[in-house]
Amino acid sequence: MPELRRDPVTGRWVIISTDRQKRPNDFRIERAALVGRDQCPFCPGHESFTPPEILAYRHNGSSPNSPGWDVRVVANKFPALQVEGTLDRQGEGMFDRMNGIGAHEVIIETPDHDRSMAAMSEAELERVLWAYRERIVDLKQDRRLRYIVVFKNHGAAAGATLEHTHSQLIALPIVPDFAREELDGARRHFTGKDRCVFCDIVRQDLADRRRVVLENADIVALAPYAPRFAFETWLVPKHHGARFEEAPRQEYENLARVLKSILQRMDRALESPPFNLVVHTAPFADDVADVFHWHIEIMPKITRVAGFEWGTGFYINPTPPEEAAQVLRAAHV
Amino acid sequence: MPELRRDPVTGRWVIISTDRQKRPNDFRIERAALVGRDQCPFCPGHESFTPPEILAYRHNGSSPNSPGWDVRVVANKFPALQVEGTLDRQGEGMFDRMNGIGAHEVIIETPDHDRSMAAMSEAELERVLWAYRERIVDLKQDRRLRYIVVFKNHGAAAGATLEHTHSQLIALPIVPDFAREELDGARRHFTGKDRCVFCDIVRQDLADRRRVVLENADIVALAPYAPRFAFETWLVPKHHGARFEEAPRQEYENLARVLKSILQRMDRALESPPFNLVVHTAPFADDVADVFHWHIEIMPKITRVAGFEWGTGFYINPTPPEEAAQVLRAAHV
Repeated sequence: MPELRRDPVTGRWVIISTDRQKRPNDFRIERAALVGRDQCPFCPGHESFTPPEILAYRHNGSSPNSPGWDVRVVANKFPALQVEGTLDRQGEGMFDRMNGIGAHEVIIETPDHDRSMAAMSEAELERVLWAYRERIVDLKQDRRLRYIVVFKNHGAAAGATLEHTHSQLIALPIVPDFAREELDGARRHFTGKDRCVFCDIVRQDLADRRRVVLENADIVALAPYAPRFAFETWLVPKHHGARFEEAPRQEYENLARVLKSILQRMDRALESPPFNLVVHTAPFADDVADVFHWHIEIMPKITRVAGFEWGTGFYINPTPPEEAAQVLRAAHV
Repeated sequence: MPELRRDPVTGRWVIISTDRQKRPNDFRIERAALVGRDQCPFCPGHESFTPPEILAYRHNGSSPNSPGWDVRVVANKFPALQVEGTLDRQGEGMFDRMNGIGAHEVIIETPDHDRSMAAMSEAELERVLWAYRERIVDLKQDRRLRYIVVFKNHGAAAGATLEHTHSQLIALPIVPDFAREELDGARRHFTGKDRCVFCDIVRQDLADRRRVVLENADIVALAPYAPRFAFETWLVPKHHGARFEEAPRQEYENLARVLKSILQRMDRALESPPFNLVVHTAPFADDVADVFHWHIEIMPKITRVAGFEWGTGFYINPTPPEEAAQVLRAAHV
């Protein structure tokens, strides 16, 4: 059974994922052994290679766990958390732990083994975003859970172990540090000013323009003022909303448009970099409707994160965001 | 001029290190191009390859910037921050910035190009720790500065770009997030209990034993209860002290002993892994003598940090610390 443990100093929760445990002799630097098309568990016809599907979009009425799907969601075969069981929250002296209850799912974004997210059509991308939403809405009903993070690793250097394009979802019984820090910061700002900090950022950056890459009616893509990574890009809704899964339908449509353009521009300007994408949304329970503002963070992996950053979370970024935004603006597709 | 910028949501400061700036076409995944002995700027006889030395330990009375040193400290040739100038703290609307004032130094640990830290003698390691201390004590006199982080990247996968063993020091005009979070957490604990949280951890773990790797009169090496990384190991002084640079002399001696043993055990059990080492010490100004407790964190890099962790700071660790401690205890040297 995986475990969630809390660091008694910082309050940070980590997953001790014993199901993924390896023998001591297995501890070497992992290299991604990419699986070819023949063995790809995400290709049509290989549906039996994965756990049974949780959700699928099928345009032709084909039956579950068979070809004919456009988007397919399955449980992760090597989950970091498990669905069954009770949390069993307890102390061990001064330490705090609970069972690693939660969900770990894979969103297979397209049946096409060779299609990258950047190459998918806007309609296909919107369908993927809609699958994110549907899974979040469903999992929120589980009262044991507090937070869902949807993320994507593209490329072996960004942590992807299968090349067939996919996203992942981890539903947690705790609020992870990154979300708690953002929420605390947004709350501090709101308490002083009665305004959402993200709304203020959008307003200032839209007036300033230097860090704006592109925008449409609903979404702005911007290089954040203090980016951790070179070419880090945030996709932020212009209209306030705390939860990704509660966004109006046309925001997904406009988000898909901006997402495609940004990924294509990154491919063009940065030579198809590996990247990570993380959906930041509000925790379930908190009363945060006015305070938090959902958004998506995209981090191309073009500079190695060195030791200073790794384990300290203190970042040195060689590219000012004004320059990054200019490069991406100029990268016409 | 490098810049320090603060994220308006989380309060996290990042260094925008424009001196290291690259042209857009240069943005590919960096690979460490290790420099051979002939070109090694850290080898004796190559003293002119580095900026002039700031500190050196010489047993034979040789002159500065010439061979004959045992430990040598120089400014980083490609510094993330610069020493000259004023902070010029200012707002840009809602954003906060200051000039990237600070120091970025390199501690060359031995003249021997092929010696790893694990292979150095206890006396040699103690000398390196003493050099850390001397540099911190000197830099603290600069009233512009608030924090110093001393760290080491060993191996290309951990971010080292030169194989000749060395540590780095970055002196900052702000307190980085990792230190602020630890300090805030330690203060919360102290406020409730009038006890240091690290002292409590040492006490509980020494009684429990399962996460203790080894100890001597002054230092205990333990696998923390909620480690982010497989085989993450902390070296914690048994006696309370907030600042690394104020430790009594015999603590360095005993720290060197434990450090050597831990690095040797990691080499044995984990096949000489790349690792990062970070000294955690209290910020300069704060009144934290009772609250904070200096320690060293060592993070072998044996599992790839995947996208979920990267950019979120939420960690999945495949190895329970009780197992990691057991493996390192058993790795007799």
